Amino acid sequence: MSQSKANALSTWVEVPKNSDFTIYNLPFGIFKSKKLSPRIGIAIGDKIVDLCILDQEGFFANMFLPEGIFLKDSLNDLIGLGKVQTRKIRERVQDLLLADNEKLRDHQSRGKAMVNRKEAEMLMPVKIGDYTDFYSSIEHATNVGKMFRDPENALLPNWKHMPVGYHGRASSIIPSGVPFNRPKGQFKDPDMEAPVFGPSKRLDFELELAFITGKSTKLGDSVSTAEAEDYIFGFVLFNDWSARDIQNWEYVPLGPFLGKNFASSISPWVVTLEALEPFRTQGPTQEPAVLPYLKSEKPANFDINLEVYIQPEGKTASKVCASNFKYMYWNIAQQLAHHTSNGCNLNVGDMMASGTISGPTEDSFGSMLELSWKGTKPVKLETGEERRFIEDGDTVIMKGFAEKDGIRVGFGEVSSQVLPAKT
Amino acid sequence: MSQSKANALSTWVEVPKNSDFTIYNLPFGIFKSKKLSPRIGIAIGDKIVDLCILDQEGFFANMFLPEGIFLKDSLNDLIGLGKVQTRKIRERVQDLLLADNEKLRDHQSRGKAMVNRKEAEMLMPVKIGDYTDFYSSIEHATNVGKMFRDPENALLPNWKHMPVGYHGRASSIIPSGVPFNRPKGQFKDPDMEAPVFGPSKRLDFELELAFITGKSTKLGDSVSTAEAEDYIFGFVLFNDWSARDIQNWEYVPLGPFLGKNFASSISPWVVTLEALEPFRTQGPTQEPAVLPYLKSEKPANFDINLEVYIQPEGKTASKVCASNFKYMYWNIAQQLAHHTSNGCNLNVGDMMASGTISGPTEDSFGSMLELSWKGTKPVKLETGEERRFIEDGDTVIMKGFAEKDGIRVGFGEVSSQVLPAKT
Repeated sequence: MSQSKANALSTWVEVPKNSDFTIYNLPFGIFKSKKLSPRIGIAIGDKIVDLCILDQEGFFANMFLPEGIFLKDSLNDLIGLGKVQTRKIRERVQDLLLADNEKLRDHQSRGKAMVNRKEAEMLMPVKIGDYTDFYSSIEHATNVGKMFRDPENALLPNWKHMPVGYHGRASSIIPSGVPFNRPKGQFKDPDMEAPVFGPSKRLDFELELAFITGKSTKLGDSVSTAEAEDYIFGFVLFNDWSARDIQNWEYVPLGPFLGKNFASSISPWVVTLEALEPFRTQGPTQEPAVLPYLKSEKPANFDINLEVYIQPEGKTASKVCASNFKYMYWNIAQQLAHHTSNGCNLNVGDMMASGTISGPTEDSFGSMLELSWKGTKPVKLETGEERRFIEDGDTVIMKGFAEKDGIRVGFGEVSSQVLPAKT
Repeated sequence: MSQSKANALSTWVEVPKNSDFTIYNLPFGIFKSKKLSPRIGIAIGDKIVDLCILDQEGFFANMFLPEGIFLKDSLNDLIGLGKVQTRKIRERVQDLLLADNEKLRDHQSRGKAMVNRKEAEMLMPVKIGDYTDFYSSIEHATNVGKMFRDPENALLPNWKHMPVGYHGRASSIIPSGVPFNRPKGQFKDPDMEAPVFGPSKRLDFELELAFITGKSTKLGDSVSTAEAEDYIFGFVLFNDWSARDIQNWEYVPLGPFLGKNFASSISPWVVTLEALEPFRTQGPTQEPAVLPYLKSEKPANFDINLEVYIQPEGKTASKVCASNFKYMYWNIAQQLAHHTSNGCNLNVGDMMASGTISGPTEDSFGSMLELSWKGTKPVKLETGEERRFIEDGDTVIMKGFAEKDGIRVGFGEVSSQVLPAKT
């Protein structure tokens, strides 16, 4: 696919200005509608290309795809075919959408093949096997260390030697648009003698990106940083909801558990690694030098703008954070190589999230914990309200997009409303 | 099912003395053989009852079971039918195996229905959704606290208020009999200036039991301690392999990751909660009193003897630990209630392990870390060898059985050999 302005691609589909879903993007997702059972589509502009219809009409002829591969309620079987196949499918769709290609444009089934996004409900894109959360932003880890540990030695001794990570809960990962109840749990404020059980008082978001694996490994095998990207199919926005009070009381010594596993929200369109290629960039210098198994020759950071909005119920949304994926200290190749360095096996559909993506400035911090500095500096909203943490009825919206030389590739959004705790 | 000696059950199947698989047990598992594709069986003595054959021959008539429910490579669909159904199936099989019941005993298909265990290969019993590991033995938590923290304040402040737990890796859980390679990873001995990468030098087992959930919940819903057992189908032995050097360097602040996720081994036969009923017992007194959501009226500990053996390659196995599941401070009802107290949803086939089950005496500690007290007191084997941790070629075998009033119900074993690290 050509990426320079000189070879700009144009499509016969109407793509609104600033749409995340350009001819350069073409992310995969699972959708259904009143008329259609769950199936695989590709987004462009305000439309979804129904890949089942393209398949039925013979547009994937000679590609030797398994029968019914697009009539699925997850992408797992499709991405399990491997990158050679998924890349070919995406390129075939891109070709069919080019302005001067009349094959689909003038085909009698065009109307059926192009579904309005407004009429579709987006579902979970993958059946997640295992979910891992990293902690790879140095700005975030430093902020947390300053707040809870020693401001002079904010980073723990292991942090610059490995992409620290932990296992999370796959069952409670939900797609954009699904609300959830404020979690209840145990917490113990500093002035309390004993812990109490009740609704969390410090509910927070964490701005993250997550990648989805498209290739499995055998138990005992390791993947090098050089091979790592072969195992990465694409990315989604990831809101790692966190109850700070629950987390703070429970996390020693085995890490976060109920403070995190009540819900995580993801954007429904999986943006492929190929689509993000033009936005590849060099990450921060790693000093001290990393161990050989973590050396990563190829730049593996990506310049992706990330934004977080808080929308109180029935009111305007306010932007509270503008960060960028390029700040990550540990890159995706290092994360995947580290994860498999002990022989831990991968399955197609595993999800690995970045950890909170904070930037260097105060307005780029990726959580309320950091933005309100533990609740000491309330964040002002455009409505005149203030927020220390997230309140009942609030919707948190995360957006992400990359833009360069007139090419825009974005994620759409992950949006989720917090309902009151169940009684 | 009657449990007293007065109503002792006898079967027409030959059950060797001290067999774990008595007429009172009847655990479920997935097996295959040279002739048979993966399917569901029930163990008795040295035989497996092939439930596919019983089904074909009409022994489950009038039970309205879905077609092909036993011709599966996991128990998930079966246990997803619910306890009422699985209990009926197990009781039907028990009835058919009773000494005075001629229906199967004298049936022409008896030979086909009763497979020799020696000729079968046992597979993973369930497709595990999410796997959680608790830390519920007070003796174990105290030992670890004494070794690594403050001997005077060995337990952390949260420990007596909640069953501390964390999420683990489901993909690397393997059945008994599958060997694995010693993991490599980063570690930093106290005398090292910087971490190194290499094969773990402190590979350990952890003696645990794990339960498998048989019923799902919706996101946002909680399960009370009184309801918890409705969600628990049965138990397996669980060896939570641990690389102490990797774990020690990585685990702050987010908990164990690569020090644990290279492999966990389980016994293949799922012993049902019903079969363990006669061995139910009161757990330790919990002081301070637990919060109301963790109060558990019914005794929910079980008197199950647990043993660990180390077998150096080609040599005799030595028993190195004799513990008991009854020592658990936090019981299974409390674990499940805590896990869902924040609305975290369960799926059929989730696995929740107990954490290392150590008893009060030195010979009942459930890990080499404790048995050799961090490697300072080598454990003597019957071969004359010593072990501080587990060496290449060693097989670790865990056994578990309950026995009372002439009734024996056991797990068989989980046995796994450690191969050298891959080069």
